[in-house]
Amino acid sequence: MNPKASARAAAIAGHLSMRNASSEVKDTSILGLGNPMASMAVERSKASFPIRELTYFLDGGKEMTAVKERIMTELERDPVFQNVDFYDLTKEQLRERTMSKIARLIHYITSEREEISHLRLSLVGLIDMSLLTRTGVHYALFFGSLRGSASPKQFSYWISQGAAEMKGMVGCFCMTELGHGSNVAGLETTATFDERTDEFIIHTPHTAATKWWIGGAAHTATHTVCFARLIVKGKDYGVKSFVVPLRDPKTYDLKPGVSIGDIGKKMGRDGIDNGWVQFSYVRIPRQFMLMKHSKVDRHGNVTQPPLEQLAYGALVVGRVSMVADSAQMSKRFVTIALRYAAVRRQFTSKKGEVETKILDYALHQRRLLPLLAQTFAMQFSSDEMSAMHRALTRKIDSTDPGDRTAMAIVIEELKEVFTTSAGLKAFTTWACAQTIDQTRQACGGHGYSAYSGFGQAYNDWVVQCTWEGDNNILALSAGRGLVQRYLEVQRGTKAPPQTEYLNNLARLKSAQAGSRQIDSVAVLSEAWEAVAAAVVSKAGESFIALRKKGLTADEAFEETSQQRFLAARIHTQCFLVLKFFDRISSSGPQIQPVLTDLSYLYAIWSIENDAGLFLQAEFFTSKQIDEIRELCNLYCRKVREQAVPITDAFNLSDFFINSAIGRYDGNVYENYFTQVKRQNPSKPQAPYFENVIKPFVHRAAEVEVDGEELDEDEP
Amino acid sequence: MNPKASARAAAIAGHLSMRNASSEVKDTSILGLGNPMASMAVERSKASFPIRELTYFLDGGKEMTAVKERIMTELERDPVFQNVDFYDLTKEQLRERTMSKIARLIHYITSEREEISHLRLSLVGLIDMSLLTRTGVHYALFFGSLRGSASPKQFSYWISQGAAEMKGMVGCFCMTELGHGSNVAGLETTATFDERTDEFIIHTPHTAATKWWIGGAAHTATHTVCFARLIVKGKDYGVKSFVVPLRDPKTYDLKPGVSIGDIGKKMGRDGIDNGWVQFSYVRIPRQFMLMKHSKVDRHGNVTQPPLEQLAYGALVVGRVSMVADSAQMSKRFVTIALRYAAVRRQFTSKKGEVETKILDYALHQRRLLPLLAQTFAMQFSSDEMSAMHRALTRKIDSTDPGDRTAMAIVIEELKEVFTTSAGLKAFTTWACAQTIDQTRQACGGHGYSAYSGFGQAYNDWVVQCTWEGDNNILALSAGRGLVQRYLEVQRGTKAPPQTEYLNNLARLKSAQAGSRQIDSVAVLSEAWEAVAAAVVSKAGESFIALRKKGLTADEAFEETSQQRFLAARIHTQCFLVLKFFDRISSSGPQIQPVLTDLSYLYAIWSIENDAGLFLQAEFFTSKQIDEIRELCNLYCRKVREQAVPITDAFNLSDFFINSAIGRYDGNVYENYFTQVKRQNPSKPQAPYFENVIKPFVHRAAEVEVDGEELDEDEP
Repeated sequence: MNPKASARAAAIAGHLSMRNASSEVKDTSILGLGNPMASMAVERSKASFPIRELTYFLDGGKEMTAVKERIMTELERDPVFQNVDFYDLTKEQLRERTMSKIARLIHYITSEREEISHLRLSLVGLIDMSLLTRTGVHYALFFGSLRGSASPKQFSYWISQGAAEMKGMVGCFCMTELGHGSNVAGLETTATFDERTDEFIIHTPHTAATKWWIGGAAHTATHTVCFARLIVKGKDYGVKSFVVPLRDPKTYDLKPGVSIGDIGKKMGRDGIDNGWVQFSYVRIPRQFMLMKHSKVDRHGNVTQPPLEQLAYGALVVGRVSMVADSAQMSKRFVTIALRYAAVRRQFTSKKGEVETKILDYALHQRRLLPLLAQTFAMQFSSDEMSAMHRALTRKIDSTDPGDRTAMAIVIEELKEVFTTSAGLKAFTTWACAQTIDQTRQACGGHGYSAYSGFGQAYNDWVVQCTWEGDNNILALSAGRGLVQRYLEVQRGTKAPPQTEYLNNLARLKSAQAGSRQIDSVAVLSEAWEAVAAAVVSKAGESFIALRKKGLTADEAFEETSQQRFLAARIHTQCFLVLKFFDRISSSGPQIQPVLTDLSYLYAIWSIENDAGLFLQAEFFTSKQIDEIRELCNLYCRKVREQAVPITDAFNLSDFFINSAIGRYDGNVYENYFTQVKRQNPSKPQAPYFENVIKPFVHRAAEVEVDGEELDEDEP
Repeated sequence: MNPKASARAAAIAGHLSMRNASSEVKDTSILGLGNPMASMAVERSKASFPIRELTYFLDGGKEMTAVKERIMTELERDPVFQNVDFYDLTKEQLRERTMSKIARLIHYITSEREEISHLRLSLVGLIDMSLLTRTGVHYALFFGSLRGSASPKQFSYWISQGAAEMKGMVGCFCMTELGHGSNVAGLETTATFDERTDEFIIHTPHTAATKWWIGGAAHTATHTVCFARLIVKGKDYGVKSFVVPLRDPKTYDLKPGVSIGDIGKKMGRDGIDNGWVQFSYVRIPRQFMLMKHSKVDRHGNVTQPPLEQLAYGALVVGRVSMVADSAQMSKRFVTIALRYAAVRRQFTSKKGEVETKILDYALHQRRLLPLLAQTFAMQFSSDEMSAMHRALTRKIDSTDPGDRTAMAIVIEELKEVFTTSAGLKAFTTWACAQTIDQTRQACGGHGYSAYSGFGQAYNDWVVQCTWEGDNNILALSAGRGLVQRYLEVQRGTKAPPQTEYLNNLARLKSAQAGSRQIDSVAVLSEAWEAVAAAVVSKAGESFIALRKKGLTADEAFEETSQQRFLAARIHTQCFLVLKFFDRISSSGPQIQPVLTDLSYLYAIWSIENDAGLFLQAEFFTSKQIDEIRELCNLYCRKVREQAVPITDAFNLSDFFINSAIGRYDGNVYENYFTQVKRQNPSKPQAPYFENVIKPFVHRAAEVEVDGEELDEDEP
């Protein structure tokens, strides 16, 4: 026995004391991290309000909560929807899985009321954004186009073909082209009327006119609604929509003249089989043109509708639901980060003591709690937006298109909904992207693990900022609406409620906080209205000045684009603040205090972010801006106390949260370790050990060629 | 022949005229998008400066450009580094590919000068961030620790074992634990000295002390440098480092007591085999403790170094290179987005005309050109930071540790480098993340395609914001340094050059732009110095006030954390602006104008972003802030003219850009379509057609159970 081995043997005898020494160390160190589950329990015990009340308030009543919970249970228990391995799926697996889920969802979609289906789909969107979109491609885009643009007879025909049930046919939506996205009017695919055969010839004239990003096209769609330029007798009537069969629904063989390929890997949403589509002189019956609005008869006579704007009303639906999704998704991620912050401890001022919860650090509160408050603001504005949209839809349906006066009012309201939804869609989808990113960073290194849920969600989410109206383009369009509204007000027309502040320009111009208490609904509302009024006025006045200089309206709009963008941003911010305050007034007394704190935090934090504008508008003094920074800290501390109970009120189960570090019980280290081990079972060696690692690590010394040996002998 | 068929036959006869009609449409529509390659050529023809001169200036001279180009050629031609399929690789494929590349790189790393290797690795980082990290795990972390913390004899020993060449051994770095990241001093793994056997016992006391995120651990490492609490005779001496063998280098079997698992999927950098490691009473010879600084002798006597700060000097290296990476990576993405913006056209004011380049829209210029200017700012600050760091390293190496006065000066400089590098690392890695995100959005929908390069890069990049010092923690630490510097200045000590503005507090407090021209180095520099002075003073004064109230220093720092954060942000911003101006003075006359425009744009844009602070400091009036917004538009228009030539000066070939929409030739639609087709060859049906799609689409009508049929006959 060598000396070391014998010493070791002796050490075995002393093993018990060794273990004791080690477990002593263990106890001291465990103390540092505290007990995460106990830490979480402490947070819950602080609740100053009935959590269930807040849930009902957010859901829109006890009954709605019950419906939501039923749907959540159905999804959670369904084996097809199990998502424990979600973050490890490849693109191919995601696509197959998504389709299996659609096949499962169809039972509910075809058998329940539309509002319930919407609720179900919005919950589905929380756990799988690709699934929501891929279902939406058929129902919202394809079927929605039929409903909005087909004549009644055409609509019945497509229903009879299975369009309502995805039976015998699956639809997609060929709008975007490689070369044209935002500029829909510039699309280049052609639909040329051939009077001899009573057909349209659908054709892709060149590569950049290839239909692109078409969800469902690569694998699943049998039919599409295709946007193409209507050409009759050599005349271009602009872009209309046509149903084009793509594949034989039995064999899935491509129809003659149709070329389809896979768009391949994307930043996210890999569960959607986006494809590209080219048409080479594809013939469809004339009757496949959707003719609710524009019509072409047997002899090539074209009739165009007087109010084509109504055809675009359908675009608003997508925006409205993206605002709702922004609130919904934010709930999920602020919940994860706040739960983690409530149990994660790091650093202590006194050695040997339990370390401090990261939620107790002032900066950490600053990073997360305004995002929590923003989540409420987004939900309440979304509720308001949905109500506006429902009211408008009812009005459109009940107004006689022949009644010009009534229709003018409807069109005016449609414009307002367009502007408001454009701004809200842009700034809430951005806010949600920022929320996912910031909450991830607030979870430090562990936020980077796929199993915490942030990475996948961020990648899946951010397409919301560029699709269905790129956010910048939408913001500019909202800004254009605001400038136009300003001009109308200057001409004496009263502004509608959404821009009420434009009716009070004179008062707001000289408004100041003065000696009033800043954290009050009166001052905070007026502050936002004053700044919105100032920014919109400035854009409007610049526009007027440029027009006077001789610029065309288009030129003047372009020249003021930065100001329009700012106007849209501040207007939307103002809308979010005001709707938050409005909504609180209808809350019960038990939850009103916590909602009030959240609303003040939101309004104050937003002022701080745009301090320059409030100083320029002279609503606050420089000293008051300092005070606002302090108030922001103060309301962070207040909200911090209720942070976990508030997120509990969002009522999202672990299945919907789907994060190893954001589970309800707070047992973060064990949950996370378990998840990592389950998804990555130990293997003795890497799959490429024999091929790559071994030859590399065991490589022999490189033979150094000694050039001198090869030298010719010199004399 | 049915009537339709005969009409079709007739149509064939008229096919030629049909084609003509169609190609007429084609020509009109193609006109809309213009010719992308010609559009790009027009941009290049506008160059107002010699592009090559700017390249030399950025690279640090003609010779450096030559070296870079040699390395780029070597990488680009090497089949192991081909990256056309990079965006389609799975986690498993990425890991294998990364290891193959390391096996290839080793030839260069072991045979060329260290500076050349650094340059090579920084270029490698542009095309594959995982590869850079995985190489860095061995060289910067494992080998770097040996170099920095091993005694000379120990260092020689590990060299003899193959540490310098990754031959027979591959190292990793066990610092972070599941429960402790930022708080390194709180790590819980123990290294208990067993005097009887002259060994340390390395042990993981509980789950949260599991080593976590350990790059290289899952598949490749044979050894690790492990951070553990040194326990001798029951006393805890804090965290020290130890070499621990993990696997048998021949068989890769795990050593007894070592458990290793795979961390699995991450948001990005899947080419790195991160693992978790648990030690169960693992014994290592006493001599495996790295004893350059702290020592334990045969009898358990512990000696600790007088200046342990120096041991942490190594942490600065990572920060310095992340600042450089931020500039480097930004170059890649502003190039992509600006090239795309120079050829992408959308919307036209006059029907039938070529549409407008998106780069010609004012808002698009606003979105991209400040990011281009920021890229230069980051590079110049990075160059300055690297120079500071090199000078410090030389000084540390040449100073006699016994010379207390000389050492005090070195420690003082080290502190300054710590503060500056902390702020720069935090704010440049954030700025780069924002650049990748904003440039992606500026490419609209196509930015979301994996083949445009943004998604992968964003996911790979953002870990820079939370690792090696979480950005928020680093910013707070930089803020703490600034407050301390402020206190010293109050006590009469002169501030070093990095915080020169603290020596001019009185003057800066009353400084104003006044009637001077805003777009001048004098005014813009003074503006930033005045605001930095104001913000740092405010944080310092708050700290002093809190201390007077009786708070401990720790409490007062915590209480001012928001102000410290702001101080660090503004100080860093000021540094970036001043170093930009400094550097221009050394540029040649031909490139000075374009650099000057970029520097003004950067300084002005940053002022606009923090307008509130400039108003509060009363450096600018409200009217001047409006003027600044106009100046920002103006400099965007100026820089726009040179945008493509400027990005050409970054001198990154298509191989390094690796983006289907950002290639040099501007032939965006064809390049992109080709890439999508090559990576996604057409298949007749989806892989899950038979299993999922077919049964779903062809499902029979659900048999509706008519409950009434089952009713018992009623009487």
